[in-house]
Amino acid sequence: MSLLRSHRTLVTHCPRNLLRPRYLNKMSSFRDYSSLETPASCYVDFCLVPVGTGNVSVANEVAEVQRVLKASGLKYTMHSAGTTVEGSWDEVMKVIGQAHAVVHQGGVKRVQTSMRVGTRTDKKQTAEDKVKRVEGILSQDQQKKEESS
Amino acid sequence: MSLLRSHRTLVTHCPRNLLRPRYLNKMSSFRDYSSLETPASCYVDFCLVPVGTGNVSVANEVAEVQRVLKASGLKYTMHSAGTTVEGSWDEVMKVIGQAHAVVHQGGVKRVQTSMRVGTRTDKKQTAEDKVKRVEGILSQDQQKKEESS
Amino acid sequence: MSLLRSHRTLVTHCPRNLLRPRYLNKMSSFRDYSSLETPASCYVDFCLVPVGTGNVSVANEVAEVQRVLKASGLKYTMHSAGTTVEGSWDEVMKVIGQAHAVVHQGGVKRVQTSMRVGTRTDKKQTAEDKVKRVEGILSQDQQKKEESS
Amino acid sequence: MSLLRSHRTLVTHCPRNLLRPRYLNKMSSFRDYSSLETPASCYVDFCLVPVGTGNVSVANEVAEVQRVLKASGLKYTMHSAGTTVEGSWDEVMKVIGQAHAVVHQGGVKRVQTSMRVGTRTDKKQTAEDKVKRVEGILSQDQQKKEESS
Repeated sequence: MSLLRSHRTLVTHCPRNLLRPRYLNKMSSFRDYSSLETPASCYVDFCLVPVGTGNVSVANEVAEVQRVLKASGLKYTMHSAGTTVEGSWDEVMKVIGQAHAVVHQGGVKRVQTSMRVGTRTDKKQTAEDKVKRVEGILSQDQQKKEESS
Repeated sequence: MSLLRSHRTLVTHCPRNLLRPRYLNKMSSFRDYSSLETPASCYVDFCLVPVGTGNVSVANEVAEVQRVLKASGLKYTMHSAGTTVEGSWDEVMKVIGQAHAVVHQGGVKRVQTSMRVGTRTDKKQTAEDKVKRVEGILSQDQQKKEESS
Repeated sequence: MSLLRSHRTLVTHCPRNLLRPRYLNKMSSFRDYSSLETPASCYVDFCLVPVGTGNVSVANEVAEVQRVLKASGLKYTMHSAGTTVEGSWDEVMKVIGQAHAVVHQGGVKRVQTSMRVGTRTDKKQTAEDKVKRVEGILSQDQQKKEESS
Repeated sequence: MSLLRSHRTLVTHCPRNLLRPRYLNKMSSFRDYSSLETPASCYVDFCLVPVGTGNVSVANEVAEVQRVLKASGLKYTMHSAGTTVEGSWDEVMKVIGQAHAVVHQGGVKRVQTSMRVGTRTDKKQTAEDKVKRVEGILSQDQQKKEESS
């Protein structure tokens, strides 16, 4: 009995982390998740659709959303199928929430948004970098074609 | 001619707001957007994908995300293509940001999430209500079939 | 009994459409859906993510997808968070399916794509038109500012 | 100098493929992409939104989409934020296109759909399997908690 007890004591005192693979330590149900911080940077591409307006065009609402984005001071680019915003998670999500709010204030009762959200920890990559990277690869196609002809 | 001119003067001096539909007044570039509050309630369906892990399965990460959601106290439901969460805009966006954070802490360098976000001001509708509403309509099909046969 | 029968006969012979609101005739469970044709034009914005590659960068796969798009002859534009393609529903969906196939052939076992698909019957609007429309509205902001100052 | 030159000649004449990793050979601009086949199986989760209807509720349209899915014979499940369909790429995309068509026929001029599309080559995994996999991992949490208490 004393042996058993001392064993239990050993286990209790031995740092849990040493007995489990590191990955499992990090991903476990024994954590306090509430203190987790949201990512310091992210990029979000979103497309906001006002629902039930009786108006097929969404251009007025999209314009209003661009004004909210402009006022936020965040970096953003509009394209034909959405708008890409960059900033901290909290800042970006706040401004998109404000975009919903402003469209509701304009009299729209329902707003539906589709978002793509990306975060990475290995490096900071801007929206611009991403496009350039792919264009760089594709420009080599042309060079190869010329070389091989 | 003098009439026309005085009319123009009148128009210029008349507060712009009185001459425009109310909708346009609300949607304008002369507002202070920074004080806009994010919606008090929303529902978000999201699908988080870890990128560059070397592991085709994403089940461990999805499980970890479920733990973060559970710890948040928000109402959520997992389905085969994502998880739906309900709560205030800020709460829901915070917990999804924490989900990104926890997956990064597990060693994943890049995380990509697709979200559908809905807000409405006309009524509070839960995820459950939405499904029941459609099922109600569809159950009438069966009745009509029976009636017509 | 003869009355009942004649009534039934009447109903049967009377074109169903005259007895129901037009909207319900179109949206009903008594239709043959299999003969429905997919839309003649659509625009799709998509973002393809290779899963389980062990490589955080997705630029090679995105470049390969651009080559598939180029070969299709469809109109497309890449931006930092996806690529927008325009064409008939069947053409556009086929080329995105081929994009999945080509990435799989490159050795990627799992591919996840997020899409936004839009169709409209009131007019043909290109990706370019949509952006111009919003930019037009926003450019008036500047004019109003100048007028009011 | 002559050595260098001969080396360069060698490289040029040597079949390009032998000098590059196999992965890069497959991903190249020298292919015929038009013959690529779309994936034999996929799962798609989609959320269709009618735009400009003047009606905040989308339940009628969602019900109509469910009827189209039912008629297709494909496996599908509706949840509160969309519907998941399984089948070959061409079948699934066709039925979602028909869903757009049927909603347009009901008088809706603009339809916007958000989709998540997944394909994998390593194994066939149903929507049901995916949920079970995660639930299996989470059920171990409870066991661990009981063991550790």
